[in-house]
Amino acid sequence: MTKPSVTYSKIKKVSNSAIVEADDILASEEPLEIRIGYGPLANRQQKNISVTMRTPGNDFELALGFLFTEGIIKRSEDISIIRYCTEANTLKNQENIVRAELNENVEFDFKNLERNFYTTSSCGVCGKASIDAVRTVCEIKNEGDNLKVSRELIYTLPALLRKHQNVFEYTGGLHACALFDMDGNLSLTREDVGRHNALDKLIGACLAIKTDNPDGFPFHNYILLLSGRASFELIQKAAIAGIKMVAAIGAPSSLAVEMAKEFGITLIGFLRGETFNVYFGEERVS
Amino acid sequence: MTKPSVTYSKIKKVSNSAIVEADDILASEEPLEIRIGYGPLANRQQKNISVTMRTPGNDFELALGFLFTEGIIKRSEDISIIRYCTEANTLKNQENIVRAELNENVEFDFKNLERNFYTTSSCGVCGKASIDAVRTVCEIKNEGDNLKVSRELIYTLPALLRKHQNVFEYTGGLHACALFDMDGNLSLTREDVGRHNALDKLIGACLAIKTDNPDGFPFHNYILLLSGRASFELIQKAAIAGIKMVAAIGAPSSLAVEMAKEFGITLIGFLRGETFNVYFGEERVS
Repeated sequence: MTKPSVTYSKIKKVSNSAIVEADDILASEEPLEIRIGYGPLANRQQKNISVTMRTPGNDFELALGFLFTEGIIKRSEDISIIRYCTEANTLKNQENIVRAELNENVEFDFKNLERNFYTTSSCGVCGKASIDAVRTVCEIKNEGDNLKVSRELIYTLPALLRKHQNVFEYTGGLHACALFDMDGNLSLTREDVGRHNALDKLIGACLAIKTDNPDGFPFHNYILLLSGRASFELIQKAAIAGIKMVAAIGAPSSLAVEMAKEFGITLIGFLRGETFNVYFGEERVS
Repeated sequence: MTKPSVTYSKIKKVSNSAIVEADDILASEEPLEIRIGYGPLANRQQKNISVTMRTPGNDFELALGFLFTEGIIKRSEDISIIRYCTEANTLKNQENIVRAELNENVEFDFKNLERNFYTTSSCGVCGKASIDAVRTVCEIKNEGDNLKVSRELIYTLPALLRKHQNVFEYTGGLHACALFDMDGNLSLTREDVGRHNALDKLIGACLAIKTDNPDGFPFHNYILLLSGRASFELIQKAAIAGIKMVAAIGAPSSLAVEMAKEFGITLIGFLRGETFNVYFGEERVS
């Protein structure tokens, strides 16, 4: 049994007319520790990679997506299995700790481990350095794309996402993201208290899909919709996956726009009703 | 000259009737590296503590607040000075790197360094462990408080915050938080692309205020208002500062509510118009 993604709580509802006791549903938030196993089977090593505060559910996708968007693995085949760690005595699953097994032949790259891999040592820290780091740490896929969508199609995306935001519906407490194909069909959506987790879950779910395509999941044929703002971190993850079009219901940050320009990503913000802003890459909007 | 907190950008505004070029203002987002200097003056050591993506501005407050809410320092007097690092050749300020000097007599506690200090080694990772970690790492202040405010006063807070949200006004891209006194007067507000940064800036600004009170700034006499959701991390920071009442315009997460209960914090959510929910600590609402 996996942990529930919502929690029930007794609250007081206050208004001018009354204070009433009521039942409320909260978005669950719990830490997830991600570990990897690596090295020869005869002498297996373990390394703790990160702890993130996440909404339970789709934990293996989250781990897979995180390892990929952090540049620790290059493709899903680098991992043989992901599972919950077990309690030594009881063998019960510890559902807040996952371990991903790197294949024996995959070299574990310690230098990509730093969660904040845009930290630079001596040249100072600046947005430019952050973008360079993304470029060098990961091979950004630059498949040609023929993504072109009409503005009318883009208008329809938020309502489609909203229809699928199950937990948000009840709690109002989650970020969501979704992938749409070029015809505007919703392919997949994920939710989480952390917006970066929602995107890692979405990317991880796609990576886990078995495909005959040697290049893996064709992210460049899809539109990514974000329920909130577009931060640098989200565009970085999208860039590493090879996504070429990102639409956000909220505002982008300055560095998100820079990142989009650097990697040729169409970036749309303030997608509300029948208007939106294009920050870069308008040629994909017809 | 410090870095600006907004960035100008040319965009295309798309609507049914037209696509027009327009000027837009974005919330700036840049990395800030926080370093500390510690040890005897004759043999000073440096340690990189963290990199956070932040909106430039109030960087020293951010560093001070972060070091405090992470448990690395116990009071602002532990720090003698915070400044930007300088380029070795040009002596120009590197405005994305700050260094905080710990006083010689302050012992630097490496075990509190881990950004995710709720990571536990062998007992598993769970919400309970996270809360225990906060309790042991930092001495939570438990001054008696006589905070009591009327629901009518609480209703007025979001509008007061909105009036002071300068950058948000233009960019729609920032989180904000504010402290109000018991009469509902706005004392201080801070904004940032990262909600945790906004709160660290606010707490850091209060810590920096010179006071005759040996216990420092009386956080327990103030109401903290959050412009968005209340996550575990924000309530954790509030708890460490000794804040006893938190009101959020958005939803709290499950672990945020648990944390509030554990530390006796009144937690209000969905504060909109003339209604709100009380998740814990209704005795402070009259």
